[in-house]
Amino acid sequence: MDPKPLRIDEIGFGGIKLLQDPAQFCFGVDAVLLAHFARAEETDRVCELGSGNGAASFILYAKYHPRQVTGIELQEGPYALASRTAVMNGLEDHISFLHSDILQLKMHLAAETMDLVISNPPYMEKGSSLVNPESEKGIARHETTAVLSDFMREAARLLRAGGRLCMVHRPFRLGDLIESARAAGLEPKKLQAVVPKAGADANILLMEFVKGAGKELQFLPQLAVRNDDGSYTQELRAIYGSWYGHPFSPASCGNK
Amino acid sequence: MDPKPLRIDEIGFGGIKLLQDPAQFCFGVDAVLLAHFARAEETDRVCELGSGNGAASFILYAKYHPRQVTGIELQEGPYALASRTAVMNGLEDHISFLHSDILQLKMHLAAETMDLVISNPPYMEKGSSLVNPESEKGIARHETTAVLSDFMREAARLLRAGGRLCMVHRPFRLGDLIESARAAGLEPKKLQAVVPKAGADANILLMEFVKGAGKELQFLPQLAVRNDDGSYTQELRAIYGSWYGHPFSPASCGNK
Repeated sequence: MDPKPLRIDEIGFGGIKLLQDPAQFCFGVDAVLLAHFARAEETDRVCELGSGNGAASFILYAKYHPRQVTGIELQEGPYALASRTAVMNGLEDHISFLHSDILQLKMHLAAETMDLVISNPPYMEKGSSLVNPESEKGIARHETTAVLSDFMREAARLLRAGGRLCMVHRPFRLGDLIESARAAGLEPKKLQAVVPKAGADANILLMEFVKGAGKELQFLPQLAVRNDDGSYTQELRAIYGSWYGHPFSPASCGNK
Repeated sequence: MDPKPLRIDEIGFGGIKLLQDPAQFCFGVDAVLLAHFARAEETDRVCELGSGNGAASFILYAKYHPRQVTGIELQEGPYALASRTAVMNGLEDHISFLHSDILQLKMHLAAETMDLVISNPPYMEKGSSLVNPESEKGIARHETTAVLSDFMREAARLLRAGGRLCMVHRPFRLGDLIESARAAGLEPKKLQAVVPKAGADANILLMEFVKGAGKELQFLPQLAVRNDDGSYTQELRAIYGSWYGHPFSPASCGNK
């Protein structure tokens, strides 16, 4: 018997089914918002840095049909799951995964080969708290090897001039996001704050950076997840689309 | 006859009357939002960098009664008006103005003598467009001598360790705001976006920086100026307080 029972979830975008390990963590609103925000073109070659079980890569592909998506994941478990999901959905010619540390990526992927990089990197700064080395979720949330400036530098290396990096992160790190992006030659061009409900502080940040762009940021209207009565907002329902009937973050998973 | 007829406006905070020159520009929502956002303590020694006709300094004083406010203004006209306003209101012992370029300020004010610096600096980058040298409004809006990094450096010099800089600016310069603040030793700690109405891009940014603070930014809920029906929001009315019955930006002035 498989010691780690997996679950197969319909993600609601293009009929794609996603393998998830409920003992570790399942995809949440971050992956959906990131994929939506990134608006890939059909000609785009896309790389996801830190792809986990592949949720954002699969949703992005289902929504926008970019030419090619390559997900990079440090952890063996989520990497293997994402690869199985690609095969299970018959998408292995379009979406592939690479088991690599961001810090070693230049041995695998050449410079300036991507039009779009997406990333949901670890939020917590290296050394900010203890991480359980057995927890895939803990490692996904804390900088263990690559730190934010490594993600930025690697995204800048992979992107062609004018290529975009779309990132979901936490608002408390805004200063680090902007400073490390600029240091890598990525200019912040769009920002959208996500609030749990109107009147609350933002708890998710969506940002678009463009390699070598001129300065001038567009500050998009904030996106509220829930109405005052606790129901999901019309705007969030539209982003979830046909998947809206499904629970957002399965209660049996530990991520939210 | 005075070639420049002035107007005396009740600003609605503590009965203070403000001299304004409608041929140049009157205070708008920026000054009110900045003063409100800055929440001065009664023990604070405050400096305003680029004080114009003094609106933000007077409103801040009327709302929070800080110990002392010193406004710095490069342009002779607004400087003289602000000084006359202080005398007219009998506040010259609490609020004073200094006619100086930010770049020359260290000849007048010693380092680490302020608890709070407020500023509504020129938004437009030096060289970004032509400025009419006869227009006080144009000079107030465009970096002519001091640029954003000079405002940041001077604020950092004036502040004691742990002192705060509160600034109102435009969202499109967020990258420059964060990068120049950090270069000066000021850490971004609070951010509030102001939108003309819900669903619109932000067009005003309020930020608080703290000298020598640790990293971690609070991303406050956005503030909407108007409701969908064009009326002012409850939140904005509360900030304007007793002045709400007055027009926000007198139609006879050219600033909004």
